[in-house]
Amino acid sequence: MTVLELDETRAAVLHAPRDLRIERRPLPALGAGQVAVRIAAGGICGSDLHYYLHGGFGAVRLKQPMVLGHELAGTVAALGPGVENLAIGQKVAVNPSLPCGACRFCLAGMPQQCLDMRFFGSAMRMPHVQGGFADTIVCAAAQAVPIPDSVSLEQAAFAEPLAVCLHAVTRAGSIFGRRVLITGSGPIGLLLVIAARRAGASEILVTDIRDAPLRKALEVGADQVFNLAADPDALVPYAAAKGQIDVAFEASGSGAAILAALPVLRPQGVLVQVGQGGDVNLPISGLVGKEIELRGSFRFHPEFETAVRFIAEGLVDVKPLLSAVLPLERAVEAFDLAADKDRSVKVQLSFG
Amino acid sequence: MTVLELDETRAAVLHAPRDLRIERRPLPALGAGQVAVRIAAGGICGSDLHYYLHGGFGAVRLKQPMVLGHELAGTVAALGPGVENLAIGQKVAVNPSLPCGACRFCLAGMPQQCLDMRFFGSAMRMPHVQGGFADTIVCAAAQAVPIPDSVSLEQAAFAEPLAVCLHAVTRAGSIFGRRVLITGSGPIGLLLVIAARRAGASEILVTDIRDAPLRKALEVGADQVFNLAADPDALVPYAAAKGQIDVAFEASGSGAAILAALPVLRPQGVLVQVGQGGDVNLPISGLVGKEIELRGSFRFHPEFETAVRFIAEGLVDVKPLLSAVLPLERAVEAFDLAADKDRSVKVQLSFG
Amino acid sequence: MTVLELDETRAAVLHAPRDLRIERRPLPALGAGQVAVRIAAGGICGSDLHYYLHGGFGAVRLKQPMVLGHELAGTVAALGPGVENLAIGQKVAVNPSLPCGACRFCLAGMPQQCLDMRFFGSAMRMPHVQGGFADTIVCAAAQAVPIPDSVSLEQAAFAEPLAVCLHAVTRAGSIFGRRVLITGSGPIGLLLVIAARRAGASEILVTDIRDAPLRKALEVGADQVFNLAADPDALVPYAAAKGQIDVAFEASGSGAAILAALPVLRPQGVLVQVGQGGDVNLPISGLVGKEIELRGSFRFHPEFETAVRFIAEGLVDVKPLLSAVLPLERAVEAFDLAADKDRSVKVQLSFG
Amino acid sequence: MTVLELDETRAAVLHAPRDLRIERRPLPALGAGQVAVRIAAGGICGSDLHYYLHGGFGAVRLKQPMVLGHELAGTVAALGPGVENLAIGQKVAVNPSLPCGACRFCLAGMPQQCLDMRFFGSAMRMPHVQGGFADTIVCAAAQAVPIPDSVSLEQAAFAEPLAVCLHAVTRAGSIFGRRVLITGSGPIGLLLVIAARRAGASEILVTDIRDAPLRKALEVGADQVFNLAADPDALVPYAAAKGQIDVAFEASGSGAAILAALPVLRPQGVLVQVGQGGDVNLPISGLVGKEIELRGSFRFHPEFETAVRFIAEGLVDVKPLLSAVLPLERAVEAFDLAADKDRSVKVQLSFG
Repeated sequence: MTVLELDETRAAVLHAPRDLRIERRPLPALGAGQVAVRIAAGGICGSDLHYYLHGGFGAVRLKQPMVLGHELAGTVAALGPGVENLAIGQKVAVNPSLPCGACRFCLAGMPQQCLDMRFFGSAMRMPHVQGGFADTIVCAAAQAVPIPDSVSLEQAAFAEPLAVCLHAVTRAGSIFGRRVLITGSGPIGLLLVIAARRAGASEILVTDIRDAPLRKALEVGADQVFNLAADPDALVPYAAAKGQIDVAFEASGSGAAILAALPVLRPQGVLVQVGQGGDVNLPISGLVGKEIELRGSFRFHPEFETAVRFIAEGLVDVKPLLSAVLPLERAVEAFDLAADKDRSVKVQLSFG
Repeated sequence: MTVLELDETRAAVLHAPRDLRIERRPLPALGAGQVAVRIAAGGICGSDLHYYLHGGFGAVRLKQPMVLGHELAGTVAALGPGVENLAIGQKVAVNPSLPCGACRFCLAGMPQQCLDMRFFGSAMRMPHVQGGFADTIVCAAAQAVPIPDSVSLEQAAFAEPLAVCLHAVTRAGSIFGRRVLITGSGPIGLLLVIAARRAGASEILVTDIRDAPLRKALEVGADQVFNLAADPDALVPYAAAKGQIDVAFEASGSGAAILAALPVLRPQGVLVQVGQGGDVNLPISGLVGKEIELRGSFRFHPEFETAVRFIAEGLVDVKPLLSAVLPLERAVEAFDLAADKDRSVKVQLSFG
Repeated sequence: MTVLELDETRAAVLHAPRDLRIERRPLPALGAGQVAVRIAAGGICGSDLHYYLHGGFGAVRLKQPMVLGHELAGTVAALGPGVENLAIGQKVAVNPSLPCGACRFCLAGMPQQCLDMRFFGSAMRMPHVQGGFADTIVCAAAQAVPIPDSVSLEQAAFAEPLAVCLHAVTRAGSIFGRRVLITGSGPIGLLLVIAARRAGASEILVTDIRDAPLRKALEVGADQVFNLAADPDALVPYAAAKGQIDVAFEASGSGAAILAALPVLRPQGVLVQVGQGGDVNLPISGLVGKEIELRGSFRFHPEFETAVRFIAEGLVDVKPLLSAVLPLERAVEAFDLAADKDRSVKVQLSFG
Repeated sequence: MTVLELDETRAAVLHAPRDLRIERRPLPALGAGQVAVRIAAGGICGSDLHYYLHGGFGAVRLKQPMVLGHELAGTVAALGPGVENLAIGQKVAVNPSLPCGACRFCLAGMPQQCLDMRFFGSAMRMPHVQGGFADTIVCAAAQAVPIPDSVSLEQAAFAEPLAVCLHAVTRAGSIFGRRVLITGSGPIGLLLVIAARRAGASEILVTDIRDAPLRKALEVGADQVFNLAADPDALVPYAAAKGQIDVAFEASGSGAAILAALPVLRPQGVLVQVGQGGDVNLPISGLVGKEIELRGSFRFHPEFETAVRFIAEGLVDVKPLLSAVLPLERAVEAFDLAADKDRSVKVQLSFG
C-alpha cells in the first residue's frame, strides 16, 4: 500500500459559460477503498460542451465552479487503505458513475437511476460532483477498471460514451437481425453504429444534416446514410407499408428527428431516445395507431465493464472517432474544436 | 343451412356531422363462410361520437355516408354456405375486426396492424367499411363469437371495448402486483380499471376532471380517485423519490394527462397510450432522464375472445357501466346522451 | 423505545426426523434495527414437513437442532434501537427472507438468489438459520410487514406461501387471458390457483391424484379438475393440435407431472417448476420440437409485500385453505395432520 | 416466362439405413408461383446423417424412400406462372421450410411450428417431403432467396444451418454483452459461435470431447475452449458464486452436456437446447433453486433471410467450416466423411 504524495492537481474548471480555466486544486486524502489515478486521456462529451457553451441543459445548470470531464483513462498512482485488486501503474478506464448501492433502484438493478448518484462532472446535485479533466483524480477503486497494456489510454477513454450506447442498445431489447435507423451522427450516433453492428443489426441507416459525420458513419459500419438537410424526403421510401424500420436510436436530441422517425418505424417498432433535448410536439394518434414505443435511455452501469472488454478484445474499433488530442493547457481550443461538427468527432485532452 | 330471406335492414347512417339518419339499406347476399346476425345491442363508442360530432378524428374523415357502430351483439339469423360451427338462434358477440390473414403483420401475430384491415364503422379506407348499428348485419362466421345463453346481449356488446382494454393491459407487459395509474375515467378508462383489477394490479389510481365518472371508477374497483380540475396537485405526493407509479394507462387523449403522468412514473415506468388525441408537447429530457417508456396501444385481436370469456364467466362485471339503452329510432337522442359525460358512461342502442 | 424483558421463548425444535421437541430457548438481545414479534400463527410448510419426516430434501440436510417454521404472523412486542416505523402492538406478517443487500444478485434485483441469504428455518447454511415456531422471535424491522387490524393473523400467516406463488406467476411472464394448467393441488397448488385467477388467467385446470384437494381447487376458483390417478388420460384432449395449454405451473415436484404437462403445452409454452423434487427423465426432443420453456421458480422477495397487500385488501381469499389450528404443545399432532393430504390442506400452529 | 424443359433429375435417395442410391426421378410440372432451381451446393446436415446411419431420430423414422438434403443453393432454371420477382440465372439460397401460412401458429408469428409444415427432406409426415440433394428441384418462388453474384453458392448453402443458429440466439433473448457457453462444437456449435459473436456476446466458451472441433471453434471466434473428455472438471471454476455463465447453447444433444451446464449457469440463466437428443435425467431441485430456464429451439423462419443477408454482406464468415465438397455420385463417401467428426466439419455435395 502506498501513500499518495501529491496533494494538488491541475484541472479544467468551468466558472461560467465560456469561462474555462486551468487551475491548481487540492486533492483529497485517499480514503479507504479509494485510489488515485493519473489521467492520461479525457474525452470531451456533449454534456461538457453544453456546460461550456450554455452553462447546462434543461433544469441542470452550473451553480458553482466545477471541474468538467467524465470520459477518462489513466494509470493507478496510489492506493488507499484496503485496496487489493489494483496495483500502482495499472492502466485503467475510469467509470464516472458512483451509485449508492443501497437505494431501491440500486437494489432493483437500475443503479443508473440511483437516488443518491455521484456522477463525475455533473451539476445535477449541490455541491456539484467534480469531474476528471485533471492530472490526477481520486476515485473509488471499483471505478478504476483495468485494461490490458496492449490497449491505448486514448481508446480506453471511449469506454464511457460506448457504455452509454451499449445501454441504449440493451434498452431496445434485442436488435439481432433487425433493420436499425440512427438519427444523428455525432460521437454518440457513431458509437451507436458501432454498437448496433456489434449487436448484430442486419442493416444500419444513419441520418444527419451534415456530410462530414455521415462519411464517418459509413467508415465505422453504416450501410446507408442520408443527409436530411440536402434531401428532406430521403427516408420516404422506408415509410411504405406502415414502415420498414424495426428500431430507431435518436441521438440528436432534435424533435424533428423523432418526428421523422415515426413514419418509417414499423408497427410496434421501438424508438430509443438517447439524445437529451428540448420539447417535441408529438402526435398522439401516430403513436397509438401504429403502437409505437418510445423509450428513454440514460447513462449505463454494468455496460461500462462490457465497453472496456469490447475495446480491449478488439470487438469494436473506436479509433476512427478520435479527431484530435490537445494538452490540458489548450483546453479552450479543444472545446471550440469539439463544438465544430464539421471539423471534429471526438476531441480528447491529454494530461501530465 | 338456411337461405336468408331478409334483403334489407334499418341502419343508423351518418351523412355529415350531426346528420344521423335511420334509413333502409339493402343487405348483401350471404357469401361462403358468412352469417347474418340480428343485432340486439350496440354500444356507442368514442369514435362513433367523434364521427357524429366532428366528422372524424385526425386524418380519418367521413367522406361518404357510413353506418356507425362496432360494439355489437345479437343472435345468428342465417348461415351462408360452409358455416358449420354456428347455429341459427345462437347468441353472439360480433368482433368488428376483419384482418386479411395474409399480410406480414397478420403473419407476425399483429392482425390489428393488418395492411388490409376491414373494421366495422371505420372511415379509414375508401369506400368506408359500414358499421353495425342496424337490425341485421352480414359478417364472417369467424366474427360471430358464441356467448352462453346466461349472458345478456347488453353485456356481450361490451366485449369490444373491453377487448381494447385487455390489449392495452397486454401491451404493458405484466401489471401483476403493480401500482397503476389510469388517466381519464370515461368508458375506456373504467374498463381499464376493471381489466387492471382482473390482471392483478396491486393498487389502482384514477384521475379525471369530473366527479361523476370518478365515483363510477370507485364503484368498479379503483382504490383511489383524483379530480385534477378540483385539485391539480393531487398527484404530487406520488412524484416522490423519482416516482411511485409502475404503469400508467392514458385513456383521455389529453396531452395534459400525459404530462401529468411523467413525474409520477418511476424510472423505467411504462405509459400505455390508449386514448386517441391531438399533439402533446413532450419534454425529451424528462423521458430520457427517467428512461420512461411510452407505448401506443391500438384495438385488439385475440383479446376479443378473451373479453367474451371474461364476461361469460363472470370474471369481470361490466353492468355498472351501462347508463341507458335507447331504441334505434332514438339514435340521435342516444348520441347526445353519450356525449354528456356528466349524465352517462356507456349508452347502447337496441334494435329489431 | 422499549427494552425487551423476555429473555427466553418456547420453540418447536427438530432434533432428528420425527424428533420434534417443545423446548425453552434463550432469545438474543435486540440489536439496532431489530424487533421482537410475539408469534400468533405459524403455518406448516412442505419444507417443514420434509425436515420433520425425512430430515431434509436433496442436498439440504438437518445437521444440528433447528427451530422450524417460516410462515409467521404476530404482533410487535419490543423495538430495538433506531426502529421508528413500527409500534408495539402492531400486527405484522413476518417475512422469513433476509438477503444481504450487497451481493451481485441483491444488486441485480434477485435477492432471493442472495449469496449470503438468511432464511428462517433453513438448514441450507451452517450454523442453520433458526425458524419461527416460537412464542417470540427476533427479526429485522424490515421483515415485520404491517397488516391492518381488520385482517386476522391466521390469514396473515399465508403471506409467505402466497408470495412463493406470486413469484411463480411473475416468473411465467404475463398469464393475463391465458389458459393455465396447475399440476398438484396441495397448499402451493391451491395458492397458485388463487394467484393465477388474480393475475387474470382465462381458464385454470388443475390435476392431482386425490379427490379431496381437487374439490378444494374448485372451491378456490379452478375451472376444471382432473384426478390423474383415476383417469390417466384425462388431459389427452388438450394435446390436440400440438397442445392447448399456454402456461403450466408444476407444484407437485413429481417428474410424472412434468412429463404429463409437455404434450399439452402449446409450442413455446412455459412450464414454471415450483415444486421441489427429485429427478425427471426429460425427453430432449420433446422440449426442442415444440420449443417448450422450463423455468425454475424459487422463493420470492418483493412479492411478500404484494401478498400482504392482496390479503389485506381482500384481493385474494386464503381462508378456505386453513384446515386446522393446533397449539404449539400439540405440534407433533399438527405435523402428522399436515402430512395427511386427505385430511388437511394448511395446518397452522398457535402460540402464546 | 419460361417452360421448364427438364422432366427428370438425378437425386440421392435413401431407401434404408446406409442404403443411399443415386437415382433418376421425374420432376413435377411447375405450378403457379413455383420455380425450378439447379442445385449447385448441398450441405449434409446432422439430421441427414441420422437418417443415413439410423433411419431417423426419436419418433421420426424413414418409412418410404426419401431424397435427403435441405441445405441448398443454386441458380433459378425456370419460372412457373406468375413468378415475377425472380429471373432465370439468379443465384439463390433455398429455404427448405414451407409453412402453410394459415394455421394458428403461422398467424401467431411461429411458422416453424406450423401444423401443416412441409420441410424438405423430412420424414415427419407421410408421404415424406422429398429433399433437395438433386441436380434440379422444384420449390415455391418464396423459398428461393436471391443472393448477390459475389457470394459463392457453397457459402449460400450455409444459410439454412446458420438460420437454425440465429433462431437459437433469438430464443435466448438478448445475449449482447453476455458470457456465453456453447456445448458441442460440431457444425451447429460452430455456427452458434459465429452467431453469438455477431450478436455481441462478450465472451464465448466452447466445450466438446474432441480437440479438432475445438481448434476450429477458436478459429471462428471462441475465446476459450475446453475438452471435457480430457479434463472433466474444466468448467468447475465457472460454478463459483452460483455460476458465471449467463446463457448456454446446447448443441450436442447429450444429456451429460445439459447436466454440466447447470452448475455454471448463474441464477435465472438460460440454456437454449438446440441439439436433438434422447432423454436427460434432470435434477428438479437444481432447476428450481437457481431458477434456471431451459428453452427448446427448433428450426427458424424469418431468420433464413437474415442468414442470407449476413452471409452476403460479409457480417459472418462461414468459409472455415467447409471441409470438403464431393460430387453427387460420391454421396456415400461424402456421408461417411461427414460422420467422422475428427476429419470434417461440414461436407457438401456438388451437382450438375
